[in-house]
Parts: sequence; C-alpha cells; structure tokens
Amino acid sequence: MLTDPVLTDPVPTDLDFHVFDTTLRDGAQREGVSYSVADKLAVARLLDEVGVGFIEGGWPGALPKDTEFFARARTELQLRHAQLVAFGATRKAGVRVEDDPQVQALLDSGAPVVCIVAKSDVRHVREALRTTLEENLAMVADTVSHLVAAGRRVFVDCEHFFDGYAVDPGYGVRVLATAFASGAEVGVMCDTNGGMLPMGVARVVADVRGQVVGRLGIHCQDDTGCAVANSLAAVEAGVTHVQGTANGYGERAGNADTFALIGNLVTKMGLPVVPAECLPELTRVSAAIAELANIAPDDHQPFVGASAFAHKAGLHASAIKVDPQLYNHLDPAVVGNDMRILVTEMAGRASVELKGRELGVDLTGQGDAIGRVVDQVKVLEADGWSFEAADASFELLLRAQLPGAPEPLFELESYRTSVEHWGNGVVVSEATVKVHVHTATGERERVISTAEGNGPVNALDNALRQALVGRFPALAGVSLADYKVRILGWNGGTSATTRVLIDSTDGAGEWTTVGVHDNIVEASWHALVDALTYAVRHRAG
Amino acid sequence: MLTDPVLTDPVPTDLDFHVFDTTLRDGAQREGVSYSVADKLAVARLLDEVGVGFIEGGWPGALPKDTEFFARARTELQLRHAQLVAFGATRKAGVRVEDDPQVQALLDSGAPVVCIVAKSDVRHVREALRTTLEENLAMVADTVSHLVAAGRRVFVDCEHFFDGYAVDPGYGVRVLATAFASGAEVGVMCDTNGGMLPMGVARVVADVRGQVVGRLGIHCQDDTGCAVANSLAAVEAGVTHVQGTANGYGERAGNADTFALIGNLVTKMGLPVVPAECLPELTRVSAAIAELANIAPDDHQPFVGASAFAHKAGLHASAIKVDPQLYNHLDPAVVGNDMRILVTEMAGRASVELKGRELGVDLTGQGDAIGRVVDQVKVLEADGWSFEAADASFELLLRAQLPGAPEPLFELESYRTSVEHWGNGVVVSEATVKVHVHTATGERERVISTAEGNGPVNALDNALRQALVGRFPALAGVSLADYKVRILGWNGGTSATTRVLIDSTDGAGEWTTVGVHDNIVEASWHALVDALTYAVRHRAG
Repeated sequence: MLTDPVLTDPVPTDLDFHVFDTTLRDGAQREGVSYSVADKLAVARLLDEVGVGFIEGGWPGALPKDTEFFARARTELQLRHAQLVAFGATRKAGVRVEDDPQVQALLDSGAPVVCIVAKSDVRHVREALRTTLEENLAMVADTVSHLVAAGRRVFVDCEHFFDGYAVDPGYGVRVLATAFASGAEVGVMCDTNGGMLPMGVARVVADVRGQVVGRLGIHCQDDTGCAVANSLAAVEAGVTHVQGTANGYGERAGNADTFALIGNLVTKMGLPVVPAECLPELTRVSAAIAELANIAPDDHQPFVGASAFAHKAGLHASAIKVDPQLYNHLDPAVVGNDMRILVTEMAGRASVELKGRELGVDLTGQGDAIGRVVDQVKVLEADGWSFEAADASFELLLRAQLPGAPEPLFELESYRTSVEHWGNGVVVSEATVKVHVHTATGERERVISTAEGNGPVNALDNALRQALVGRFPALAGVSLADYKVRILGWNGGTSATTRVLIDSTDGAGEWTTVGVHDNIVEASWHALVDALTYAVRHRAG
Repeated sequence: MLTDPVLTDPVPTDLDFHVFDTTLRDGAQREGVSYSVADKLAVARLLDEVGVGFIEGGWPGALPKDTEFFARARTELQLRHAQLVAFGATRKAGVRVEDDPQVQALLDSGAPVVCIVAKSDVRHVREALRTTLEENLAMVADTVSHLVAAGRRVFVDCEHFFDGYAVDPGYGVRVLATAFASGAEVGVMCDTNGGMLPMGVARVVADVRGQVVGRLGIHCQDDTGCAVANSLAAVEAGVTHVQGTANGYGERAGNADTFALIGNLVTKMGLPVVPAECLPELTRVSAAIAELANIAPDDHQPFVGASAFAHKAGLHASAIKVDPQLYNHLDPAVVGNDMRILVTEMAGRASVELKGRELGVDLTGQGDAIGRVVDQVKVLEADGWSFEAADASFELLLRAQLPGAPEPLFELESYRTSVEHWGNGVVVSEATVKVHVHTATGERERVISTAEGNGPVNALDNALRQALVGRFPALAGVSLADYKVRILGWNGGTSATTRVLIDSTDGAGEWTTVGVHDNIVEASWHALVDALTYAVRHRAG
C-alpha cells in the first residue's frame, strides 16, 4: 500500500486483467473535444504505448468518422499491446439481429472485439428504450450470440447498472447472466450517472459476484470525484476489467482517468496490469493526448501532472535532498514524471543544485556560480520576482552565471506602445521597437519595427518578433499561449509592483517566463524577451 | 446511496461533525497562488457562506501576511458559521514552550482555535526534525497543554500519519494519545504524501479507533486521485472531522476538495455537515474563490463545475427532458448548479432578486426590469463578463434598468494611453482622455486631461479622475486597491478576451468592478468607469 510493489516486489507478468480505454468513444463526449480521424489514430497509438489491453475506437455505423477510423485502422494502426474495440448497441427492439444495420456495421468494422451497451435499469428500459424487460433481455441475448457466432469477442456494458441495482437489483443481474449465457466474455457494471462512492460500489460488486459466473468489469464516471477510487474498490471486490479514459476526459465531470487507474493498480495495489516497460510512458502519453485533444494539460493531475511531484522547496529542500522518498508517495521516474522543485523565496544552494540537475544543467565545480545565482534569486524575489512557475527564466538566469554564457539576442534602444480609443469607438494598439541585433557576421544592425496588436503587450510582442525573425527564423513558430498578471504590494494606487507570467509555445512544448516592474508593460517586456531568448537558445533544435 | 437523502430523508441538524477548510493555509501551497490579505478575508467570507465549521486562515508569526490577516480578521471578519483557526507547529526541540515565539504568535493571533502540526512518522522525527521520539512527544504535550491552558481549542495535525503507520504504527498512535491526554480536541490523521487508497485508509482508521479515545480527523492529499474517496472512507470508518480545500487547491495534485466532500457527505452519505440553507451556495462560492485565486475554474469539477450536469444534446436530449432524474446523479439545484449552465450562476430571476435584496435595492413590482437584467447578464456572461466577484458593476447594471436611473457621469470622446521605454532606460506612461462632463447646471463641458502613471491603466485612471474631480470632488479620496487580469478563451496568441477586475477603495470600504474586451486597456477602462461611477453614486454620502 505505502511502498512501491513494482520496484520492491516483482509480480508475475501474465496477470489476467483488462485495462480497457474508451478515450476515443466515451471520452469524446467531453464538451469541446472533437478528434479528426488522424487524431484518433494518433491517440490509439499513444494508448498502445502505455500498454492498455483494449482501445475502444468509436461507434462504427453510427458516426461516419468512426466508421472511417476503423477502416483506416486496418492498414494504418499496428498495435503492440492493445486490441481494437468497436462500440455499439444491442439490436433494436422488435427487429431481427440479422436485419439491424447498426449490428452489421460492428461486424463490418473488422474490430476483433465488440463492446455493446445494454440497458440494465428497469426505468431506462421502460422510459428511454420504451420496451419490455423481456424484450430487452432478448436483445442482449440475440446481439451477443450473433456477434460471438461471427467470431468476435464480446463485452457488454450494462448502462446505469448501479442506479438500476438500487431500484431492482434482480434485473441487472439477469442482464449480466443473459450476456454471459449468450457468450459474452465480460459484463461491465457502469456507473453511468457517476453518483456512487467506493463503499457502495464494493458492496454491489460483492453482491453481484455471488450471483453470476463470468468476468465482471467496471466503468465509472466522476460525478462524485470518486471515479478512480470506485474503480479500484471494484477491483478489490473482484472485478478484473476496468474502463477509463485518458486524463479522465468525458462527459460532465469526466470518467475514471486511465493513467491514475494504471498508476494505482500497478504501484499501490501490486497488479502488473500493463507491461513493466510501459509504465514510464504515462506522463509523456498523457501530455501528448492532451495536445491532440487540444485541452490545456492539468498540471495537478495525479501521477502525470507537471506539478504532481513538485515541492515548494524552501522549508524542506535539504530534507528532500537527503531522502526524497520521505516527501513523495512514489518515485516520479516510475511513471516518467520528475520531481520539479519550485524555486521560492527561501531558495538555498540545495534548491538551486536540485533545480539545475532537473533542467539538465551541469553544475559540477560551479560553486561560485551557484552562490551568485542564490544571491541573485534572493534579491529578485524580494522585489517580487517568482521563479516558481517560470522555469525558462530561471534557466536563463542560471546559465548566464556559467562560463561561456551567450550574448543577449539584441540590445534595446527604446520602445513605445499605445492604445487609442477613437471617437468612432474603434480601439487600436500599436507598438514600435528600436533594437540592435547582432548579425551572423558579428555586426550590430539597428532595426526599427512597428506592429499592431490586440493590446499594448501583444503589439510589442509582434513588433519585437518582427524585428528579430530575420536573424532568428525559429521565432516564426513561437506564440504566446497564456498571459498572467498579478499586482504585488499595492500601496494605495500609486506605486504597485506588477508580476507578469507568459507561457509560450512552439507547438511541441511550452515554457514559462516572468517579468516584474512597476509598469505592467515593462514587466511584460522582460517576460517577452526571456520567452523569445529561451525559444532561440533552447527550443530551436 | 443512490437517492438524495437531503431531499427525501430529513436528518437532524445538530450533527456533531467538523468540516475544516484549509484553503488559506495548506491550499495556498498550490503553485502560482498568492492571496493578498484582502483576498484572504474575501475567501474566508465565502467559505463561511457554505457553512464550514472551521476556516484555517494561515500561520501567524511565520508569515507576515498571515499575521496581518488575523489582526484584520478581528474587526473585518464577521463569520456566521465558522470559527477561525490559526495554524502553527509544536514548540521547537529543546526550547521551553513559553519561550517559543512561534507558539506565542498563535496566542497573539486571537484565533479561538489553534491547529498545530506534529510529526507522527518516526523517520520524519529522526531525519527531518532531527530529534528523539520522546522529545517529539514532549513537544506535542507541552504545546497542546500550553495552548489549552490559554483557553484555546486545540487540534493536532499528525503529519505523514499513514506513511508512518506503515513503518511503526505504535508511534503514530502514541502521538495521538499524547495529544488527547494533553487536551487536544481533535487528532488529525494526515496522508501528507497522498499515496493512500480508500481501502487502506479505512483499515488504518478502524485500527486506530480501537487504540485511542478522542475525536479523529482526516486530511488527504490527492496524489492517487482518491483524496475525496479517502476522506469519505475515513468518515465511514468513524472519523468526524474532515479537512479539505476549496476546489481541491493544494500542493502537487492538491487536497481533498471541500465542495466535493460537502456534496458527498450531505447528498450521498446523509450527513448534514453544513446548514441546509448553505448547500445551494456551493457552486457560486466555488466560482468566486477560483476568481480570487486567479485560477481558471475547472468546468468538469464534480458538483460545482459548469459542465458537471451538462449533457451533450442529441442522444439523450428528449429522454432527459422527460425525466432528468434518470440522467443526473443529483438534482443540480441542490448544490446551486444547473443542468445547462452557460456561464452564469447569476442568471435567473430568483438570483437577481436575491442579489438585489442583498445590495439593498428595492425590486418590488419591478418584474420587467428584473427580466431585462437577467437577459443582459446572460448576454454579457456569454461574452466572458463575470459578476460573481463584481458586486459594484452588478449594482450599476441593475439600477440602470430601474425607473429614474441616473445619467452617466460623462461621455467619452476618445482616449489614448502609451508606455515608452526611452534610450536612457526610463519608462514612462502617459494618457490623455477627452470627455464631456455634465455640469451642475446641466450643460455639457468638454474636458481634455492628460496625466502620467506607473502603467497605461494607471495613467488613464489619473487622467480620467483629473477630468472628473472638479465636478465630483468625492473622487479625490478614491484609489485603486487591486487589479486582476484573466485571459479567457486564448486562441493561439492572436485573439483573446481579457477580463479585468478592479478593487477600489475610499478608505472606508472596497468595491469591485469588472470589464471585458479583447484589449486589456479597454477592458480596464470599462472597470475603471464603473469604479468611479460607483464611487460617486454609492460611496460619496
């Protein structure tokens, strides 16, 4: 429980357990997510790299994009660990299964595994499906038998299982029993509305296990904030098939996060549910899927978030250095993450050394430089600078103290930026920068550049980028990803200090820089200059 | 479990249970969060509105800002439900408790409750505290006795309790027993590293309950994604004091989310841990605290997220319309949420009426005006405006729809504001406004005013104030107290919407106004104009 079984207690690797990912089907219900077919193929490849056993790719027949996904997957998708799963529904009420085009599309998809959803709550059978309880059971039996006869492995998602169990427990059990009797390999209990807590899940699973013979699965939504815990409680109660989605993406509060499930199952419960070599891929794959889904990564996500193992260094820095295990629930490297140390007001040599190591800066024999960095950080942080969230600015500051530190990209002569609200209501921003750029041949070239923007800082950013891009073409691919402003030490409206954080991106990654000044524009300028400098020095190949 | 006990099964309201919120102490460890003292007071007021029993405000003595918070709280904070808690540590090793200034600062804070942190893992006592196991117990005993003798209620946070329990269970139990024997009211078992799962928490709690007599508490971090579930498992195992933070803010993966804890305890476990009238405040308070913390709200947060009850229309739309209960784990209104919240918590006639009453605006017989306000708020919030934290802007908007609404203070012709960084390194901001002011005799006077400032907005503020102060002398005593910027809906660095919140003060009180625009300066202008208008109309006698 508290140690790390994957490291200390090797376990057999032939565990009979299903990690079933439904990012591409149920997870795509998340508001705002819309994958292209190419995105879906890329997500599937990434999921395969973390070693899940099953990837539910979509609903062929119902959604044209999903039909295309399965068609292209046959030639374009080589999976090492996972089997591809097509999702669908039981046959329609009153229709022969052979005549149901939706069922035929599941076969046509070519997926070796089919997961069909079945109603298991009597209220939903009556009010949503508008059929009889017996016909619903016949729909399950017919559809499962038909697909099994066609050589498919069949899993059955019992929708609203837990809510239905509270109303009429016998019916849900009959649906499961019918599925198993018809050849289904897994009967999945779904907490579709997500209202369960772990204790309740454990009780229902234990109860159901006594009544059916067959592999049981669990599918949890996160409406109580307990999707992961509910899934794990089900596993402890005997379930051996767990469904989740990458980063917990899904409708409403989302689904159980596949990565947290894997992290917990392997490192906390000692179940090697993915191949050992896949575990360190979790962090990378999580970030890559966020990128494909076009969702800002959650830095605070368990196991894989950028802050998941970050410590405010000061107070405990020396203790952490002596024994990180005392302050981490897990060695972050196990899941491919790392222990990012936040550089704070209390920065000492230990923090700077740790941070340098983390950034891959060799500080061996650089005692004097480290001392200068510590002093500089102390002075800057007393003035309101914060490097806690600004790794890129910190790295520039650190490297500037080391031998062979490079020249600045340019020297500023002056800038001017303005916002005008005209008589006709139009609002315009314009900036001019005058800079001296070191050309490739070592000369200084004076550049004057003017640009507009949607604000005074954006105009400055555009003007500066335009002045530098000829010399540093990589800047063409760099853009601002986020901009944060904080007012520090306000003294009655006259003299305040403003701290600006800028997140920049080049499409492949993000970095954060900081600037502090009484004037918000000058503070932004500092952060901008760091952002572009970092892009040229550390991002451009 | 599956129904909603708060609605169907009324429960006694004198439940002996502690909901303990530590947003302002442990939650402030979250990367990037930095509250001003005014922010902390505002957060405390909001937490009180959801009915938590205890609000841990910070560490007086250790952090100057927290010392000031407790000093100001004495006069500025009137709490209806909560008691304020000061956090601190046990006395230093080898020092008499009477001589420990950190302990004295806890008494000086005036907080009626003190929560002290104690080591309960033998490894941390030895390696981090570098003292003996016996001295650590003496530190607990001395500190608790000293604070209790001074009339304080004392809670003890046993740091790293669960990790310590795995190594040497007897020692953690001795720490708890020592605390209780010395007069502590609560002994809190902390999963400081956050590595536990619910089943393990339940086992340890049950085990500990058999060995000590006293009220046990639970404090969980979210490193396994199970902080809420772990806390609830502890409650099911007999704990009656639960610690959380607003929106789960905290170090690394964060803490147990106070709002999810309350939502689950009340609606799933049938424990009325907050007064019944507070539950519908959860959604509003969650959003307001996110605003104060300057963190984008998580739309997918359980119970309180904007998407927590949102359904992708289509598949189930009509069924949902017939019987929403079949597709929701809870009636969203119970927690003040909505099935299809656009952006707004405010929209809805009842909310506007409620808010009007709170602001002292008589809305009797103003049905039409209320309808217009609801419509206007919906439109504005869809564009990114938020009146959650901007009461003054909301009051102006509301009163503008009532009969006899006053004229604007002035009409804008144009403004220009600029920032220049000169060749000599000097940074200057200057703004010019051209406005038409209605004089006391009803004429329109054109005023051109130019002023400098320490930034483009400050210069505008100074120029506008200078243009208006002759006509409205009260503005001489008004100044900006805080300024917050949030970027909404960033689209790759080119077109973003900026939301600005301005806190203003006249020395006697503060008010908050909001502005939204693509251009940060224009957004600030809107908030500024509201700030000065509010000052003239509602602050100047």
